[in-house]
Amino acid sequence: MVDAKYQEYVKSNLNSFAKQIIALASQRSVSARKEGVEECAVLVEKMLSEIGATTKVLKQEGVAPLVYGEVKSTKSKKTVLFYNHYDVQPEEPLELWKSPPFKPEIRDGRIYGRGVSDDKGELVSRLKLVESYLKTSGEPPCNIKFCFEGEEETGSVHLEEYISKNSELFKADAVVWEFGTVDLQDRPKVILGVKGMIYLEFVLSSLSQDAHSSYAAALPSAPWRLVRMLNLLKDENERVLVPGWYDGVETLSEDEVGVLQKMPFEGEEFKKTYGAKEFVGKMTADVAKKALVQRPTGNIAGIWAGYTGPGSKTVLPKEIHAKMDFRLVPNQDPADLWKKMRKYIDDKGFSDVEMQLESMEPAARTSYKDPFAQAAIRAASKVYGKEPVVELSSPGTGPLYIFTRTYGMPSVDIGVSAEDSAIHAPNENLRLDLLHKGILWIAETVEQFAN
Amino acid sequence: MVDAKYQEYVKSNLNSFAKQIIALASQRSVSARKEGVEECAVLVEKMLSEIGATTKVLKQEGVAPLVYGEVKSTKSKKTVLFYNHYDVQPEEPLELWKSPPFKPEIRDGRIYGRGVSDDKGELVSRLKLVESYLKTSGEPPCNIKFCFEGEEETGSVHLEEYISKNSELFKADAVVWEFGTVDLQDRPKVILGVKGMIYLEFVLSSLSQDAHSSYAAALPSAPWRLVRMLNLLKDENERVLVPGWYDGVETLSEDEVGVLQKMPFEGEEFKKTYGAKEFVGKMTADVAKKALVQRPTGNIAGIWAGYTGPGSKTVLPKEIHAKMDFRLVPNQDPADLWKKMRKYIDDKGFSDVEMQLESMEPAARTSYKDPFAQAAIRAASKVYGKEPVVELSSPGTGPLYIFTRTYGMPSVDIGVSAEDSAIHAPNENLRLDLLHKGILWIAETVEQFAN
Repeated sequence: MVDAKYQEYVKSNLNSFAKQIIALASQRSVSARKEGVEECAVLVEKMLSEIGATTKVLKQEGVAPLVYGEVKSTKSKKTVLFYNHYDVQPEEPLELWKSPPFKPEIRDGRIYGRGVSDDKGELVSRLKLVESYLKTSGEPPCNIKFCFEGEEETGSVHLEEYISKNSELFKADAVVWEFGTVDLQDRPKVILGVKGMIYLEFVLSSLSQDAHSSYAAALPSAPWRLVRMLNLLKDENERVLVPGWYDGVETLSEDEVGVLQKMPFEGEEFKKTYGAKEFVGKMTADVAKKALVQRPTGNIAGIWAGYTGPGSKTVLPKEIHAKMDFRLVPNQDPADLWKKMRKYIDDKGFSDVEMQLESMEPAARTSYKDPFAQAAIRAASKVYGKEPVVELSSPGTGPLYIFTRTYGMPSVDIGVSAEDSAIHAPNENLRLDLLHKGILWIAETVEQFAN
Repeated sequence: MVDAKYQEYVKSNLNSFAKQIIALASQRSVSARKEGVEECAVLVEKMLSEIGATTKVLKQEGVAPLVYGEVKSTKSKKTVLFYNHYDVQPEEPLELWKSPPFKPEIRDGRIYGRGVSDDKGELVSRLKLVESYLKTSGEPPCNIKFCFEGEEETGSVHLEEYISKNSELFKADAVVWEFGTVDLQDRPKVILGVKGMIYLEFVLSSLSQDAHSSYAAALPSAPWRLVRMLNLLKDENERVLVPGWYDGVETLSEDEVGVLQKMPFEGEEFKKTYGAKEFVGKMTADVAKKALVQRPTGNIAGIWAGYTGPGSKTVLPKEIHAKMDFRLVPNQDPADLWKKMRKYIDDKGFSDVEMQLESMEPAARTSYKDPFAQAAIRAASKVYGKEPVVELSSPGTGPLYIFTRTYGMPSVDIGVSAEDSAIHAPNENLRLDLLHKGILWIAETVEQFAN
């Protein structure tokens, strides 16, 4: 366990930590609007310097700066990298905020403000956990690197380029991912990965202009054609029909099955929240739990053609669009699947359907048995006095693969936030008790890993 | 042929006819905005009275008045009904008009203004052809009735109610439909019918709120479900798969096949206009021509779900909507087909898909051999000195069935407009030479029919 002096430092400086979060969250940095991002990077570098880190700001024309930091240790040759981001989601809808989003304030043991949880509170917690080592024992238990980007909320579109151009800089033995949480019963959650994704837009045009729908007797219909094509993409059991789609997918190991079985899943509650009568394909809650972790998906995120207003308009639409996200699991290669899907669609006679790529990311997952994962699990038990919930994978997607694939290093997603922290929403907040415990948890994880 | 005195009257009064069209078109009557509709009905009744007709204005609370008129004849027991409408489409976009839409003016032998062709020019032409009889021989060749409604441009939603509540009033032996045209080579067109239609919106809701698309691994997707359902509605050959959909559909008679064969159809031009590479199902131009007349359709007029903006949003949409129009041919009963479609969709396991009715209308078609149709054809040859183009059916739909079904009477769609009259568009116009010839054509038709 992190020593008493360390614990005491964190405890007695919690108010100043909160003030730093408030200071950082007071600096607007809405990447979607490119608002205040440069200024925020300056502030982040200043905070990094102030705790005693060596800093470096990487820049590219028209791109948010990437703030790098480093603190050496003589105690261990290992290096832990902290990835966080200093950009935030837009604050709208403004009228639902109880206090101004960019003037954070503390009420009832929580800081309220845009970004105080996602991800400025997390970012400051990493700074402060290292500061606490520097102030109490002069150095952290191992080398520490910081990677703070400013485009996470807009898809981290330049992160891979930054990393690949500076690959020595970010080399590490493990990465603590940006965000972590306790569940609604305050059990800490250790998340070992994310799904991958291909996001694309299908576009099909059959006419140069909309026609009166009476001409549908003779002219081709783009909507019908795309409906037929989409219908060939998945079967009734939700299985993607592109040949080779599941080739790389591995079955879960015995360990992983064990982790999955232990993972709580309130199936009925989940369905109720979304008003679903049943899980897709009438699966059981157990199968649904597994699907969220390990099933590749093919989702229609948006579809539109023709007249979408009230009443009736008799039109034969000239074109149709469909946005789809395909979530991927470990060992599925998005670039390879992209080619396979194109070939499949062509082979089925739909070479006129355009596939416009929005983004692709492979999945990332750290082995449950990996020493870093085990360190995070042990640390959680120590700090929280209860067994953590271990998730093999978030059902969502993030640019984690950039680090794990480049450096072959393990990653855990652990942090200082609460399930009800309202990230991306009005009245985003951070619980001060979790800021406290979370710092100790991550510090303990690093310490366990270093030794 | 209508006698010389009659011909002379029409010729020498053409300017005053045009002035009446200008007067009527100067009175705004945009039914979509309920603008000036009552005032226009008053003006129409005045014009009807002035030619010597007995008039009656039918009214319903909140509904455009229906103006009825009658002129008796001792020459024949037959009665011909003229159906027209005095409401017009909105005039937007205003900036494209070369002269104010509601201040019609004459340029280069055409009247320009909103409604001068559709349908005020046609309406006035019917008044003036009867006036010409009254002025030259004291009475028309048979009894004449006028039915002028004010909601055609908004779907004639109260017409059936007006007619059924006053069915004796509108009883006649034949109806001249609202609108007629010459083709681009100035050949008069005799159109013998319209297709029917069911317009509906499919609505499918699978969740009470949109979900993050990562949950698509476990939660049901409304878009996928509707794609599957739509795919069951039609086969690859564009055939509606609802059992019994084609039960009433008759093959064309030998006569009708002959009419169809003679009907010109510029297939290549038609495809080029709409930028279609081929006809739907790779049909030949001959098959396409027949399809426009006789093929029931099922068209996706609009479809929408989820995120339809730029870039990517990972959402599992809670619901999807699809608007569809199904065009029908003679002997297909929309109410019966509606039930059959509901049963088919239920039988296929999609009873959760809502079917919201927008409108339904059966097809209407007059036999090519019917004396009234033959009268119109013979009259066209006489007046234009060239054989008319006969169309068994417009590919479009209108409320013609209300008359033909209620009274079992034949109908022809003949009139005074040109193919390039820009109806529903800026710079709508009416050719004065066609106003002249069209009046003679319709009068000759009535005369041929009466004798």
